[in-house]
Amino acid sequence: MRVVLVATRNPLNIGASARAMANFGFSALRVVNPYDLAFREARSAVGAAPLLQSAEVFAAVADAIADCRLVVGTTSAGHRELQHPIRRLEYGARLILRTLPSAPVALLFGSEKFGLSNEDFTHCDWLMRVPTVDPGLSMNLGQAVALCLYELARDPKAVTARPVRIKRAEAVELEQITRMLMEALTKRGYVNAVTATSTEERVRRLVRRLDISGKDAPVLMGMLRQILWKLNG
Amino acid sequence: MRVVLVATRNPLNIGASARAMANFGFSALRVVNPYDLAFREARSAVGAAPLLQSAEVFAAVADAIADCRLVVGTTSAGHRELQHPIRRLEYGARLILRTLPSAPVALLFGSEKFGLSNEDFTHCDWLMRVPTVDPGLSMNLGQAVALCLYELARDPKAVTARPVRIKRAEAVELEQITRMLMEALTKRGYVNAVTATSTEERVRRLVRRLDISGKDAPVLMGMLRQILWKLNG
Repeated sequence: MRVVLVATRNPLNIGASARAMANFGFSALRVVNPYDLAFREARSAVGAAPLLQSAEVFAAVADAIADCRLVVGTTSAGHRELQHPIRRLEYGARLILRTLPSAPVALLFGSEKFGLSNEDFTHCDWLMRVPTVDPGLSMNLGQAVALCLYELARDPKAVTARPVRIKRAEAVELEQITRMLMEALTKRGYVNAVTATSTEERVRRLVRRLDISGKDAPVLMGMLRQILWKLNG
Repeated sequence: MRVVLVATRNPLNIGASARAMANFGFSALRVVNPYDLAFREARSAVGAAPLLQSAEVFAAVADAIADCRLVVGTTSAGHRELQHPIRRLEYGARLILRTLPSAPVALLFGSEKFGLSNEDFTHCDWLMRVPTVDPGLSMNLGQAVALCLYELARDPKAVTARPVRIKRAEAVELEQITRMLMEALTKRGYVNAVTATSTEERVRRLVRRLDISGKDAPVLMGMLRQILWKLNG
């Protein structure tokens, strides 16, 4: 996978793109006609300095994509008549992933101000669009690169994979907490003989609803023990 | 949904976050203790100036999240012992979406250098992690905001929704192109009487493999017509 930045004006955006590449496990950065040739010093490439150092510079899009078998351009679209098929990022990323194992793919990003030119587009097999709310409102370059690479690195199973469940406290611990709370409340006169039973039921239900974890139960009991000790003192 | 930026150092990152919010249809920006109070002028907020103007400033996290019923912190994780449940972005976003229709949710982002502090985390119900390759390598703030909002705005059906298919040329057009190519090749002596049949079969198969669209067929025929006219002249 080659990330190709065309006619980028701000070297900070090249650096931010390099950082996003490092974040999502991509390494081949190609730069076509950058406005500032000193982009390799961009401070925005936190953690991606080696990647930025090894970036290749080309004078023309045709050279930068010469060894690729699939060339995909990115666009915010909506602002001009496009002669290419446009695919949404979520769908386009799947097509790219299907190609990647067998052939090099180039993903092109245009300049901050104008995006890719119509001439740039003629080198592309198809175009990919980040599904923003208003297609007339363009995206920040570094953010667009990050989104595309995130989608390419995305694990579709992660949506449904439930994280490790936190172990709840045992019933015996909840009952102990209920008793300690009742003792404290009785000491302070919150509970009277007539309503004692209904109060205890209310407290027990409340403790259950608190959904106390196995880790927090001893902490709570420790706190209550301190309070009871004070009340009994 | 409230996007809460805590102790942000660079106003350009507040602007870039505002731009990402506009890109994905979010509007409530809250800023806690920004390093630079003049952040509202950030030039990076392309197309999001009104959103940045209406951002609310708070002195403490507790104030910024006071009206929320779910508070989610973001982290690159891995760099410290966290006492909170951590959910991957893909999964966490689904949980947030389930809560949003019925209750305000706050999504917290820490400073560029240190992220959210342990004190900030104590205000959170749980934490969300962008699944980067190396959890030790942090993300650019504006990019992290963009990714989280993209995932929240993501349409799960878009992955499988096939785009409009491009209409292929009709068989009659492909046959016409084949005949025109054969005529040109015969004229130029590429075809001889002995191999004519096998050449025609090769050309017909090649034309089919080209996967010519209904739009491109007349263009190709026009070109071939010009060439034949010249060859016959």
